[in-house]
Amino acid sequence: MKPGIDVEVCEVGLRDGIQGIDTFFPTAGKQAWVAAEAAAGVPEIEVCSFVPPSVSVQFTDCLDVVADALAIDGLTVSALVPNLKGAERGFESGVHKLNFVLSVSESHNQANVRCSREESLERFRQIAELRDANADNRKVVLGAGLATALGCTIEGRVDPGEAVRTAERLLELGADEISVSDTVGYANPAQVREMFQLMRRHLGDEVVLAGHFHDTRGLGLANVHAALEEGVRQFDASLAGLGGCPFAPGASGNIVMDDLVFMLEAMGLKTGVDIDALVAVREIVAAGLPDEPLLGAIAKAGLPKGFNSGLAA
Amino acid sequence: MKPGIDVEVCEVGLRDGIQGIDTFFPTAGKQAWVAAEAAAGVPEIEVCSFVPPSVSVQFTDCLDVVADALAIDGLTVSALVPNLKGAERGFESGVHKLNFVLSVSESHNQANVRCSREESLERFRQIAELRDANADNRKVVLGAGLATALGCTIEGRVDPGEAVRTAERLLELGADEISVSDTVGYANPAQVREMFQLMRRHLGDEVVLAGHFHDTRGLGLANVHAALEEGVRQFDASLAGLGGCPFAPGASGNIVMDDLVFMLEAMGLKTGVDIDALVAVREIVAAGLPDEPLLGAIAKAGLPKGFNSGLAA
Repeated sequence: MKPGIDVEVCEVGLRDGIQGIDTFFPTAGKQAWVAAEAAAGVPEIEVCSFVPPSVSVQFTDCLDVVADALAIDGLTVSALVPNLKGAERGFESGVHKLNFVLSVSESHNQANVRCSREESLERFRQIAELRDANADNRKVVLGAGLATALGCTIEGRVDPGEAVRTAERLLELGADEISVSDTVGYANPAQVREMFQLMRRHLGDEVVLAGHFHDTRGLGLANVHAALEEGVRQFDASLAGLGGCPFAPGASGNIVMDDLVFMLEAMGLKTGVDIDALVAVREIVAAGLPDEPLLGAIAKAGLPKGFNSGLAA
Repeated sequence: MKPGIDVEVCEVGLRDGIQGIDTFFPTAGKQAWVAAEAAAGVPEIEVCSFVPPSVSVQFTDCLDVVADALAIDGLTVSALVPNLKGAERGFESGVHKLNFVLSVSESHNQANVRCSREESLERFRQIAELRDANADNRKVVLGAGLATALGCTIEGRVDPGEAVRTAERLLELGADEISVSDTVGYANPAQVREMFQLMRRHLGDEVVLAGHFHDTRGLGLANVHAALEEGVRQFDASLAGLGGCPFAPGASGNIVMDDLVFMLEAMGLKTGVDIDALVAVREIVAAGLPDEPLLGAIAKAGLPKGFNSGLAA
């Protein structure tokens, strides 16, 4: 956690938000988005995914976006890597953090990354091995995301015990952080509390746990509140709620960053983010993706009268 | 609380939802809405407001809608009354419950009902006196709603102590239930927990407390979750999120009934409501108000695969 803030928000719109969109978001627009959101105070941005162009058209300009982001003072720059080849490019790019995702449900893993969960774990083992191979790589934080940890569009209910066992294996293999992901927007607040209680009980007090929620069924921020009650202090979100999983039909996207920051600041939890400056970044997204609907309540309704964010306190 | 359910949801779309809409919702449509939503299992519906036609065009057919609703077996029929004159009509109509609203902030009360808070309390005293005047009236539950209890578009922050004192006076005057209302969508989950803790501490364990939230700034269901954590088990909501306060600029409406019921049932809290049947009622609303946007996530995304509501359990 960076000094002076209570909750760390991570912008995933440039990765999770745009990966399923066919219109290429121009490089200069991405760079402007990263710069403006970092200037608004967002401490971490996942700027791209090191996947081949056959998987998504959005990430052919990865190295340009990363290079620009790394020049921003104080910003944690992260990227997704699907396998060893992606990780090689990722480590070489100089990002501060690499994220790997596998699904807790076998069939979603097959649909999403076209291999078994055991193969995914082997890929992660190779990535961790590469991280340990030299001093530069060892500076990079390795995050592991548990997709469909709270439900799966193919299998339905997912066993929470299996989510915990998968987290344990990822930690054994070298993960620095575990992100519990409601990839398809199935979770409810009671389930989220139970899941994080179970994780904490089995993984111990030291493991960094993060929450990644989608608002597909309207419960995204209620789920964040439930996770907060269990002490979780790191959350992914996407400006204007961009994104969603291509294998989650009807999924309306990640929780809205602007609304998340409003909720946290209103609760007295400092994020370091200036909400007005954050909301203004939506114009850059609108210019880069003119056909995408931009979601979010605070951008529409405005801040409450007399609202004091943590910045002013 | 009716037997077999854990949380009581009350549909307020026919009152709060449509009061600010200029297009008259045809009487037969209102009756069909009430019948279908009662058949879906919603235990209580606020079917109208006993205000003069000069205040809203929607409620000229109050008696027809009430008469129809009262014929539905097991449904609790409620209505809003602004003053003694409205209450006289209300008691005469035979509804099971009459709700009175005053604002915790003086200037919102002036804007909303054009009188001081003291005058509002005097109006409530008169209504309670009428309730006590004969045996038939005494069967009617008297609800008191604290508008702007969690923030005001005119005054900004509202003193929680003032909300508690107002509740105490309403209870002394004869209120059977206290509804804490985030009329303008300013509340956050931390504030909601503190408010209900304070209410419980000062008002005692026996007083029925309900929550009335708006989703104006996206935190509606997170606020419900916070209230649930404090033991609140009665919530207002509006099908498809219709409505809002005419004195709350940009307010996007009540929390969405369909999404509220989904959240509660997903959490294992029985509401008695069949979600599929509830979502189907939206067609009646769409037919009656073709120009109103219908909000809500579950109607768009559908239930999770393998979802079991309390009804099936």
